[in-house]
Amino acid sequence: MRIIEGGVTAPIGFEAAGIEAGIKYKNRKDMAIIYSQAPCVAAGTFTRNVVKAAPVQWDRRLVEQSSFVQAVIVNTGIANAGTGSEGLRCCEETAEEAGRLLGLPKDAVLVGSTGVIGPLLPMDRIRAGVAALVQAKAHTPEAGTNAAKAIMTTDTVHKEFAVQTEIGGVTVTIGAISKGSGMIHPNMGTMLSYVCTDAVISKETLTALVKADVEDTFNMISVDGDTSTNDTLLVLANGMAGNPEILPGTPECEAFRQALHLVNETQAKRLAGDGEGATALVECVVCGADTKSNARILARSVISSSLNKAAVFGHDANWGRILCALGYSGADFDPEHMEISYEGAGKSILLYKDGLGTDYDEAEATEILSQPEVRILADMKMGSETATAWGCDLTYDYVKINGDYRT
Amino acid sequence: MRIIEGGVTAPIGFEAAGIEAGIKYKNRKDMAIIYSQAPCVAAGTFTRNVVKAAPVQWDRRLVEQSSFVQAVIVNTGIANAGTGSEGLRCCEETAEEAGRLLGLPKDAVLVGSTGVIGPLLPMDRIRAGVAALVQAKAHTPEAGTNAAKAIMTTDTVHKEFAVQTEIGGVTVTIGAISKGSGMIHPNMGTMLSYVCTDAVISKETLTALVKADVEDTFNMISVDGDTSTNDTLLVLANGMAGNPEILPGTPECEAFRQALHLVNETQAKRLAGDGEGATALVECVVCGADTKSNARILARSVISSSLNKAAVFGHDANWGRILCALGYSGADFDPEHMEISYEGAGKSILLYKDGLGTDYDEAEATEILSQPEVRILADMKMGSETATAWGCDLTYDYVKINGDYRT
Repeated sequence: MRIIEGGVTAPIGFEAAGIEAGIKYKNRKDMAIIYSQAPCVAAGTFTRNVVKAAPVQWDRRLVEQSSFVQAVIVNTGIANAGTGSEGLRCCEETAEEAGRLLGLPKDAVLVGSTGVIGPLLPMDRIRAGVAALVQAKAHTPEAGTNAAKAIMTTDTVHKEFAVQTEIGGVTVTIGAISKGSGMIHPNMGTMLSYVCTDAVISKETLTALVKADVEDTFNMISVDGDTSTNDTLLVLANGMAGNPEILPGTPECEAFRQALHLVNETQAKRLAGDGEGATALVECVVCGADTKSNARILARSVISSSLNKAAVFGHDANWGRILCALGYSGADFDPEHMEISYEGAGKSILLYKDGLGTDYDEAEATEILSQPEVRILADMKMGSETATAWGCDLTYDYVKINGDYRT
Repeated sequence: MRIIEGGVTAPIGFEAAGIEAGIKYKNRKDMAIIYSQAPCVAAGTFTRNVVKAAPVQWDRRLVEQSSFVQAVIVNTGIANAGTGSEGLRCCEETAEEAGRLLGLPKDAVLVGSTGVIGPLLPMDRIRAGVAALVQAKAHTPEAGTNAAKAIMTTDTVHKEFAVQTEIGGVTVTIGAISKGSGMIHPNMGTMLSYVCTDAVISKETLTALVKADVEDTFNMISVDGDTSTNDTLLVLANGMAGNPEILPGTPECEAFRQALHLVNETQAKRLAGDGEGATALVECVVCGADTKSNARILARSVISSSLNKAAVFGHDANWGRILCALGYSGADFDPEHMEISYEGAGKSILLYKDGLGTDYDEAEATEILSQPEVRILADMKMGSETATAWGCDLTYDYVKINGDYRT
């Protein structure tokens, strides 16, 4: 497996574009297309929020029922959530218009939206945007980057990633674009992430791989504890690499799984590290847990704690807040028999062991906490299960961004 | 029932004091005593955090096993949590010293701590503080207020409250002091709250009343989603009012329950409204829920949402964040058939109804959101159960306070 340049247009046969449609703001890209020259099988995971945005409802039906999909149209600015049946009609019209221009049935066109909850989409601008996207789409790295930029909201950097691996002697490529900065909390494929691959793989095999991988990647990040109405991860496979079909349980399937995992983990970490207002990526590794489920619960509790997030922002080695967050996570453990450490800046320091704080060096702890990536290690000493979760610090800018988002 | 001036010294026979013991800071009161001239029955609820501070462990044992209690010693600055068996020994030594000076067995002396997790208590200063408290304690309003001030940490105002009610022709008084500003999240009698009454009531009856009432008061507030290691609510009844014993299921018991509820609800709301950095108390009333449990879950989810808290701070009527928080709460409902409103400044405006945002007046919504108390109403249209939760907005000052708490 090797990391390569590019994103969704890295695999064979995938085209993309990002354009300015004026959905909510002027002078910024706010609509994207991903198009495959061949029909794709699709797997997806969506928000578990009871309030599901219209595009989530549309996409879920397509992923479950369509025999193939071939395009995705995404807009930012307006989430098309809290919009009832009118919102669903907007999805249908968008898919119809794209299908008409691309020569596809509407049920082969996925849609995605992100932005403010409540308003209806301006369909005249959406339709004009679809036409411009179909015109502009191309199988070039620049086109992929434009799509990655067009799906950003409060993100400060665009997020694309691609890897290649060999399947039966054939090079298979996986490329992805993602966005997400606020309203990010582990309960499904958080925010928008689109993964494209030219691998030959059945829908069933792809779906099983995606559902399992999400539990260790997108479901292990949190920016603010708010699970969005629009969370969507879509994986499209168009089979154009021509590899022997990837079958479950084979070494080839494991190679593909590892490649997919690297893509998802990389993008998930980028979402966490680029959390609204964040100055640091915070990683919590829980080891020695009794069950995998408890390991995940413990790790997520630490990176979700507002007090721990504020302490990281202040470069304050207040390990009591880590212990506290482990304690209220819902997973049981013995606080008298476990350890907490920081890692970073090439150093590792033990902060808490067997019921008492250690005699660590505060200056060293502050140095670790001043890095752009901070790792917290919790060894529960109960078993051999591990999990890793990613979050970010809580800063003045988070409050600024979200105290005045709509204006 | 009537509200009266005062706090823990309002009921007959209760004395208090608050003094400067120099536990962590100079020139501020940081130790308090509550003392009853007669033995008390005690009821208590404590944090459900797996990591329980030493004083929580000490008090829980006493509330369960002691035949009577008669004093409480509280310190701020250091939480005596994450301190293992040495921390428990500190509790025992504190209770022993207070017992020696007051002529009580150590198992009649409850202890409480709040502050930084990790450090051990400076026992020399604690012992000197206990001596000063025993010296200073008095049955005066000023002494009660001093105790209320001495248990504050990042609180901006002290919180005491008292009510009187008639039980069998006899006036019974309930008085309370509470503190709590950060690390506040509904999972038990959040933070420190001490309630004293001169009522004649059995431990069993008192315990049942307290446990039920906590579910609608202290367990319905959140400042930051972090459940402390030290949360403690203690209710002491010394029987000195001389009323006929309050028996379960009687009108007298209902009168006492209402008085206790007003005390707990008032103090809980004050904790939420004085949340770290807060500029507004946010109340969420959920009505029309299918079950009481779901009503509580929905209301708590709204007041816990970082995004909704930031929107209130920014006076931004971003009702989509309320809908979103209801949606990820874990309780099921139909977003196409429910309503969300704001109330405040003598006005009520409908924001969302049956799947769509309404055509409300933004200026009016901003006016409501600019009040020091903001009420959010969610009518789930599923049944007749209601619940109310209280929180606060998320501000720059929350980040400031918690980014640099220990220094």
